[in-house]
Amino acid sequence: MTDTRAVKDALRRQQIETPSWAYGNSGTRFKVFAQRGVPRTPQEKIDDAAQVHRFTGVAPSVAVHIPWDRVDDYAALAAHAKERGVRIGAVNTNVFQDDDYMLGSVTNPDPAVRRKALDHLLEAVDIMDQTGSRDLKLWFSDGTNYPGQDDIRARQDRMAEALAAVYERLGDDQRFLLEYKLFEPAFYMTDLPDWGASYAHCVKLGPKAQVVVDTGHHAPGTNIEFIVAFLLREGKLGGFDFNSRFYADDDLMVGAADPFQLFRIMYEVVRGGGYDAATGVAFMLDQCHNIEPKIQGQIRSVMNVQEATAKALLVDAGALRAAQEAGDVLEANAVFMDAYNTDVRPLLAELREEMGLHPDPVAAYKASGYYERVVAERKDGHAAGWGA
Amino acid sequence: MTDTRAVKDALRRQQIETPSWAYGNSGTRFKVFAQRGVPRTPQEKIDDAAQVHRFTGVAPSVAVHIPWDRVDDYAALAAHAKERGVRIGAVNTNVFQDDDYMLGSVTNPDPAVRRKALDHLLEAVDIMDQTGSRDLKLWFSDGTNYPGQDDIRARQDRMAEALAAVYERLGDDQRFLLEYKLFEPAFYMTDLPDWGASYAHCVKLGPKAQVVVDTGHHAPGTNIEFIVAFLLREGKLGGFDFNSRFYADDDLMVGAADPFQLFRIMYEVVRGGGYDAATGVAFMLDQCHNIEPKIQGQIRSVMNVQEATAKALLVDAGALRAAQEAGDVLEANAVFMDAYNTDVRPLLAELREEMGLHPDPVAAYKASGYYERVVAERKDGHAAGWGA
Amino acid sequence: MTDTRAVKDALRRQQIETPSWAYGNSGTRFKVFAQRGVPRTPQEKIDDAAQVHRFTGVAPSVAVHIPWDRVDDYAALAAHAKERGVRIGAVNTNVFQDDDYMLGSVTNPDPAVRRKALDHLLEAVDIMDQTGSRDLKLWFSDGTNYPGQDDIRARQDRMAEALAAVYERLGDDQRFLLEYKLFEPAFYMTDLPDWGASYAHCVKLGPKAQVVVDTGHHAPGTNIEFIVAFLLREGKLGGFDFNSRFYADDDLMVGAADPFQLFRIMYEVVRGGGYDAATGVAFMLDQCHNIEPKIQGQIRSVMNVQEATAKALLVDAGALRAAQEAGDVLEANAVFMDAYNTDVRPLLAELREEMGLHPDPVAAYKASGYYERVVAERKDGHAAGWGA
Amino acid sequence: MTDTRAVKDALRRQQIETPSWAYGNSGTRFKVFAQRGVPRTPQEKIDDAAQVHRFTGVAPSVAVHIPWDRVDDYAALAAHAKERGVRIGAVNTNVFQDDDYMLGSVTNPDPAVRRKALDHLLEAVDIMDQTGSRDLKLWFSDGTNYPGQDDIRARQDRMAEALAAVYERLGDDQRFLLEYKLFEPAFYMTDLPDWGASYAHCVKLGPKAQVVVDTGHHAPGTNIEFIVAFLLREGKLGGFDFNSRFYADDDLMVGAADPFQLFRIMYEVVRGGGYDAATGVAFMLDQCHNIEPKIQGQIRSVMNVQEATAKALLVDAGALRAAQEAGDVLEANAVFMDAYNTDVRPLLAELREEMGLHPDPVAAYKASGYYERVVAERKDGHAAGWGA
Repeated sequence: MTDTRAVKDALRRQQIETPSWAYGNSGTRFKVFAQRGVPRTPQEKIDDAAQVHRFTGVAPSVAVHIPWDRVDDYAALAAHAKERGVRIGAVNTNVFQDDDYMLGSVTNPDPAVRRKALDHLLEAVDIMDQTGSRDLKLWFSDGTNYPGQDDIRARQDRMAEALAAVYERLGDDQRFLLEYKLFEPAFYMTDLPDWGASYAHCVKLGPKAQVVVDTGHHAPGTNIEFIVAFLLREGKLGGFDFNSRFYADDDLMVGAADPFQLFRIMYEVVRGGGYDAATGVAFMLDQCHNIEPKIQGQIRSVMNVQEATAKALLVDAGALRAAQEAGDVLEANAVFMDAYNTDVRPLLAELREEMGLHPDPVAAYKASGYYERVVAERKDGHAAGWGA
Repeated sequence: MTDTRAVKDALRRQQIETPSWAYGNSGTRFKVFAQRGVPRTPQEKIDDAAQVHRFTGVAPSVAVHIPWDRVDDYAALAAHAKERGVRIGAVNTNVFQDDDYMLGSVTNPDPAVRRKALDHLLEAVDIMDQTGSRDLKLWFSDGTNYPGQDDIRARQDRMAEALAAVYERLGDDQRFLLEYKLFEPAFYMTDLPDWGASYAHCVKLGPKAQVVVDTGHHAPGTNIEFIVAFLLREGKLGGFDFNSRFYADDDLMVGAADPFQLFRIMYEVVRGGGYDAATGVAFMLDQCHNIEPKIQGQIRSVMNVQEATAKALLVDAGALRAAQEAGDVLEANAVFMDAYNTDVRPLLAELREEMGLHPDPVAAYKASGYYERVVAERKDGHAAGWGA
Repeated sequence: MTDTRAVKDALRRQQIETPSWAYGNSGTRFKVFAQRGVPRTPQEKIDDAAQVHRFTGVAPSVAVHIPWDRVDDYAALAAHAKERGVRIGAVNTNVFQDDDYMLGSVTNPDPAVRRKALDHLLEAVDIMDQTGSRDLKLWFSDGTNYPGQDDIRARQDRMAEALAAVYERLGDDQRFLLEYKLFEPAFYMTDLPDWGASYAHCVKLGPKAQVVVDTGHHAPGTNIEFIVAFLLREGKLGGFDFNSRFYADDDLMVGAADPFQLFRIMYEVVRGGGYDAATGVAFMLDQCHNIEPKIQGQIRSVMNVQEATAKALLVDAGALRAAQEAGDVLEANAVFMDAYNTDVRPLLAELREEMGLHPDPVAAYKASGYYERVVAERKDGHAAGWGA
Repeated sequence: MTDTRAVKDALRRQQIETPSWAYGNSGTRFKVFAQRGVPRTPQEKIDDAAQVHRFTGVAPSVAVHIPWDRVDDYAALAAHAKERGVRIGAVNTNVFQDDDYMLGSVTNPDPAVRRKALDHLLEAVDIMDQTGSRDLKLWFSDGTNYPGQDDIRARQDRMAEALAAVYERLGDDQRFLLEYKLFEPAFYMTDLPDWGASYAHCVKLGPKAQVVVDTGHHAPGTNIEFIVAFLLREGKLGGFDFNSRFYADDDLMVGAADPFQLFRIMYEVVRGGGYDAATGVAFMLDQCHNIEPKIQGQIRSVMNVQEATAKALLVDAGALRAAQEAGDVLEANAVFMDAYNTDVRPLLAELREEMGLHPDPVAAYKASGYYERVVAERKDGHAAGWGA
């Protein structure tokens, strides 16, 4: 038996961070389709993110991406966010969109390029100091396309060196979240291809180095919830980049491809104590709305995470433990599935009303006229996109 | 025992088509790295392709891509090619790089978009009439990103309708090659995801509809040589788009990721009679040199196909058949591997010299000064890239 | 808006066939764990299957497997089934468990082995004549483990020859369902690896040759519902072997690994008219309860299929079509997900009560004492297992 | 430029361990095909292994498997091996073939089963004391088939406890090699699914805990050579279980499925210093000859590893480093491929003659009459198989 009130309280506390780049245009290597009303500045991206929080109540922060969100005055940007009812969250670095990085950034065979990349990472910590952000997110596209192209081990040495330098620079209340990814854009070898590699580097550096799990970055068949459970046990789960995929790093809306997997992940988070604020697990979205409207896509994604969380919280822990200890495979599975099969939408609607929100965030957003307004306002100027 | 002379004769006849777009800049969704000396016009792409033929002797044709290679006068373009010692090969269509195609081209729910896409396909046949090309290559990025987004079956109806219209328009000596691809850019459902789907459509239409196998377009674990053998047996293998991959549609140089697989594919081609000119199997490259020099990358790729073909031709067919019929698993495998393990580079060097070529095409190309010349000549103007 | 009454009527008509072998012991190559109360004879397997029907009301037939269910008198076996309230369904053939079949059955290089295998297949049709079964299920483990081991094309010729001989033998009201599988037990090349291969053979033979989709037999990333939609459009979907998998052919309980996928499959069945009795789509389970109790596992599996079907029937077809035609990606997906997110268990409980059944089949089965009874009764003798 | 003499010296020192179970019958869950002349006792398995060493000269040790190779007197077994010219190598444990282990061994929810499993592991160390073996190989089939079945984290606690107890028991010159595997026989969650999990446990325990890489135990697309390079850098690569696969854990002959991958792995071993005896990297075969003759299959496998090693040793390290440092992608790849494309069979034939061996081990074995002799001698009695 689970206590609905406790479930609601937990859901009320949930904080899901949306990424500034999700509001701009994005696409595949084949085509970036332009959408109307897309923001043209970092400020407008924050405005859009604030809408997601306005209608869901659980998306109070926005991740920024440097240099895509570079401004002269980050304190002013933070103030702009505050004015809109949100705050600036993780600072994401970008060492993959400069011609110099063709053969890598911090693992590049050329020391000058490595230096340039490291300087960018350190600059990002400077920005964190101004925005008050706790988390630095590190994703490296570094890797090679052809066997023999570069030395795998030497690249690890260079990676270790760069990470140590960044770690050294972090303030007492700052940390970095180290991402890993199987492939893309590197197609033979990626320097941090899996959780094991990120974990090994983080363990050596210390508590301010944590692993971040992007749910789209694994080999087919990978049991992601195992990784979540394992990292939580080790005290090394820094957070999530949520999205979903059928094939590769598809960056679809979280929960769209395999809602049962999302539930299993959230169950392990809850089970492992990762839902408690104290553990510092950050719940972030990182996805691309290539063909669907962006703000609405983010709202839907936030709701998908909420629903999976609600189901995870509804698992009858006592009954589950009893069945597991008895070795009753079907009963344990049945208890688990019972929570998953529950329709939690009424409970969430109720919660929203208790929070003073419309029970249906998508309908409320559509009715708000925000989209029509920004389409009109933003029709001139350069729409932001991945890389701008 | 195989006859080296016969092997050489077969290799001398080989024709590998290079694609115009391989000479321009390309990349991933994260970044297109600019290279120096990249062509600015369709004519310059042909000039580059001619270099590949000049040094390898087996790349006499260039595939074009409409609209990337759109010109006012295709007969003049064909004449330009002829002057450079090559000819225009397959015409590739592009119904994926216009904002109208966001939800599909020939399978789009909007009939106006479908009409536009079909008109483009028919225009490509007009161009074939002018260039004298035999093959129309059809690749559709059509598909959906989300379950429920569109009706899978209705999209098949639309696909069938468009293919029938194109088929109808083909001249007596023309045919289309229908490509399939598991995913990307569509991330939930692709309208032609596998050889079975392309095959089923082609069988209904008739002999001028053939399946083309892009070696990077399959699910993990797919046995591509089985598909090759199967389609040859059915008389439905139109050709190849060669490239290689470790993960998804990586579009690396053919033979770079799994040279043994390329050998097995070429063996099935030879075994199934697909190497005979009469069967009309087209051997085309379709790859992206994101980080390596493009002309040199194409030369290397052509050589990789040659080497795999040479090994396939060296398989001792009699010994293999005897071992297979005797059920001698290890002996049959040993006969097969014996050919693969042979170093065929001396034989190919010899062949090149007999053909009046330098034995080492890469070295000869490097020594030619062509690269330095085009870097200087092409430094102004807009470099061609995927989409230009 | 969907009509609950119509949904219930459709669910009442549902027929899910359970396989006799699911009631016996099964396992992996590492170990077959023995369970208590496992049947020792074909009759006892039918007794167990009858329990599944007794408590679910929608599992009225049992597939048999020859030679595992070989008896002297098949008419008597059919009578035994009838007496227990069920009937004999598809006849499954087994040409993989004899030492002669080490290098293949109908595609074996040795003509004597091929003849033996074909004779077995024809014998199975004789049995169908006696049991009154409509469907012959053909699964071939045929394939090779090593490149070069045997000739891919020659094996297709042999496959085609055998299938033609079986087809010829079928009575007017009989048909065969041709299965495909990517790999296992063959580890390099399987003679029927994918739906395309089965489809191509079936198309040539005629309407009595149909493709059967085993949901565990695909490459990672395969969109199974696409195949279902495609085959239904072609009139070539003969049925399903349901089970689920996280990795390979895991043969877990259907709906256990990816319930959303099962819903999508059932949606395409409904959408394509495959749920109508007239189309002859057979819904069969084919799974292994390696570690969970077998009868209870089958009951749970039947319920999982029911739930997915109920959700598929609840999709608001009008709203979905409207959103699809409008190109409203998020709305179309939302309509689709709305049905999936519905908790259909109350509706199914209601339906069961209307059918005179207990609303909770698992609880009713557990309370029945059947398990305890067979554990006592069957403690002597040889427990049936895969292969016995 | 590489020095052929140095290459030969290195190859002469190579030691590849064959596993006793490879000489017995094995198969898939569908069928174990019986072969003639298969050993009936641990002694006969060693006799067969001695043949592999006799003809290759580089397979001087045999791994044993407890309880499959349980004998009363292990010192006598070691003496038997010595008499045959080989020695006993790693001791492999088996905690997966007892009905008690249905829900796991050391991670079983039942403490009594865990105790039993641990006792077996400790017994294996006792055996090592008697055989003089250095390495204890630990592979756990532990895992779950269904979400919710057991608690992922609690199972990690139990795993850690068992590993610590075994570690504690190891003598000064002993170590354990901890294996990992993505799936099979567990089909939802495996307790040690990837190198990261094994690595994390080993790091905590200390230098006598090392990771072993079974080349068939990864998710599709995993870059195994990256793992090898990474673990060598960390001083945590204990050794290899070599085999090859196209799909899952196919356990085919090493080098049969992707010889280029094997070369890349051996290159990283050489590059990372893992080929030096001092690093203690163990090169073991672990494969199943389901359809091919077993001794001959082992000989072929040993030769495949030799050939890959020879090619890896032939890589021109200076030229490679120069190209890598210059960022010359194609030249670096060309240097690497040049070694791979070399036909090393003549060099190995020469080496064998220098070692007093026949240049063609397979031919020599066939000519020896050993097979015919054991077929005759062993025709009565119970053939050994996986599990016996």
